[in-house]
Amino acid sequence: MDFEKELKDRTDRVDRLLEKHLPKEDGPQKTVLEAMRYSVMSGGKRLRPILMDETYTLFNGSTGSVEPFMAAIEMIHSYSLVHDDLPALDNDEYRRGRKSTHAAYGEAMGILAGDALLNYAFETAALAFDIDPGPCVAKAFSLFAKKTGIYGMIGGQVVDVETEGRQIGPDTLRFIHEKKTGALIEAAMMTGAILAGASDDQVDNVGSIALDVGLAFQIRDDILDVTSTTEVLGKPVGSDEKNNKNTYVKYFGLDKAESEVEHISERALTSLASLPYENPFLTELIKRLVHRKK
Amino acid sequence: MDFEKELKDRTDRVDRLLEKHLPKEDGPQKTVLEAMRYSVMSGGKRLRPILMDETYTLFNGSTGSVEPFMAAIEMIHSYSLVHDDLPALDNDEYRRGRKSTHAAYGEAMGILAGDALLNYAFETAALAFDIDPGPCVAKAFSLFAKKTGIYGMIGGQVVDVETEGRQIGPDTLRFIHEKKTGALIEAAMMTGAILAGASDDQVDNVGSIALDVGLAFQIRDDILDVTSTTEVLGKPVGSDEKNNKNTYVKYFGLDKAESEVEHISERALTSLASLPYENPFLTELIKRLVHRKK
Repeated sequence: MDFEKELKDRTDRVDRLLEKHLPKEDGPQKTVLEAMRYSVMSGGKRLRPILMDETYTLFNGSTGSVEPFMAAIEMIHSYSLVHDDLPALDNDEYRRGRKSTHAAYGEAMGILAGDALLNYAFETAALAFDIDPGPCVAKAFSLFAKKTGIYGMIGGQVVDVETEGRQIGPDTLRFIHEKKTGALIEAAMMTGAILAGASDDQVDNVGSIALDVGLAFQIRDDILDVTSTTEVLGKPVGSDEKNNKNTYVKYFGLDKAESEVEHISERALTSLASLPYENPFLTELIKRLVHRKK
Repeated sequence: MDFEKELKDRTDRVDRLLEKHLPKEDGPQKTVLEAMRYSVMSGGKRLRPILMDETYTLFNGSTGSVEPFMAAIEMIHSYSLVHDDLPALDNDEYRRGRKSTHAAYGEAMGILAGDALLNYAFETAALAFDIDPGPCVAKAFSLFAKKTGIYGMIGGQVVDVETEGRQIGPDTLRFIHEKKTGALIEAAMMTGAILAGASDDQVDNVGSIALDVGLAFQIRDDILDVTSTTEVLGKPVGSDEKNNKNTYVKYFGLDKAESEVEHISERALTSLASLPYENPFLTELIKRLVHRKK
């Protein structure tokens, strides 16, 4: 398998899907539509929609109901970054080498574009009802909304913001990692499984795998912020320490963090291998995500 | 009919419904859950959920699938006020006689509590799938998300923010009123009709009525800001002029605004009377909304 080529094909496909689903930029409310597009079409890795689609494929999903949800999860991810970057939160003027949304469009439009993307994600996901009128879409919808909200991503974000610069215990650190990063990976993979008609047990199983993948991914992020270089990473290293962020490396040191990544990702891959289906690309993608150098 | 008593019963019922659906305030993310409750349980009129429920009743809805949507629309209304009040938008420190959410919980938590309410509204509405597994809930979901988003409420808010203090034409003024206020009234009444199983024609009809009700309600709001007193209204009058807001009164004068309210509300009531069902409370509610003194 030419993994890089396969990955590029999938990333391009997600970009096309987003182009298709993003609103046309006309009408009196044009500015917010432009700001939405600016926020979403910014060269992200498209990891979450790809994980969703590959899990859908793993369980032999075929109706295409996954497509609106793939666009929706990337919109959710984008809005969370737009709001994270706001002056009252991380106050980041730049993201991925260009101005963050509020820096480009003003703070009021940053807030509104984030709201708009969050709402439009649900509007977009609802298109799946027209593709598959069966019960899977409703079930996916409920799970998706739960994982993006107060018991998922937003919950993690809240605790992260509240504890910044304060000493916290390992339980709280784990809560932040599991929710802020993990919940959206869970949303991606579990939604893919549900839409493909996987059984409840299989969906739970996929949820555990996703949580491990999210956790390993986040610890790897913490490690790279210490061990990589700004050139390789494409963003400033050492920012966690500078911003007094609570990270795995800060609490447990580099060696323990590295062994945790190994342990957690092995567990995820073993579970994945025990499922009655296989998707070699998904397995390889997970391996590379947790062992990435940037 | 003892209208005031009937209205109070309905308002109390919505409050109980919101209490039931708001998340329990425990867990590491407690602060955002408190801020959500603070924002929602603030003595609002509960107009939108009541309009939704009365329209549902009008079309003989009976499964109870309307209840999660009633809670959801009030959450959407609440989040829109929380974000409206933020320093980058209207910068209001007070709302309904007490601190606005960001003033009470800090700006970061104001942003996150708004996001949380928006997301939780969809999470809550999705509970309706368990009550009614038929196609009505999916249809209601799509309409609801459309009316709250960029082609509805958020669209109106964006144009309102962008045109503040600038001269605009009557078309833009109408766009703002129809979207910022009207779209959520449409969402309320159309969702009620859809969930009750009304036909497409009937739902469209209800949409036109709702748009008229929203427009008349908003023009009345503009009028009261000029003609009422702070004591009667319970909030400062003259704030539109002070904030250089584009209002119906500013563009057309008081007399024309008053005759528009009459004309539009008469049209709405005539359409309502032409439906094959009737709900005397709904008719009376609409009459009072457009002729209210506060």
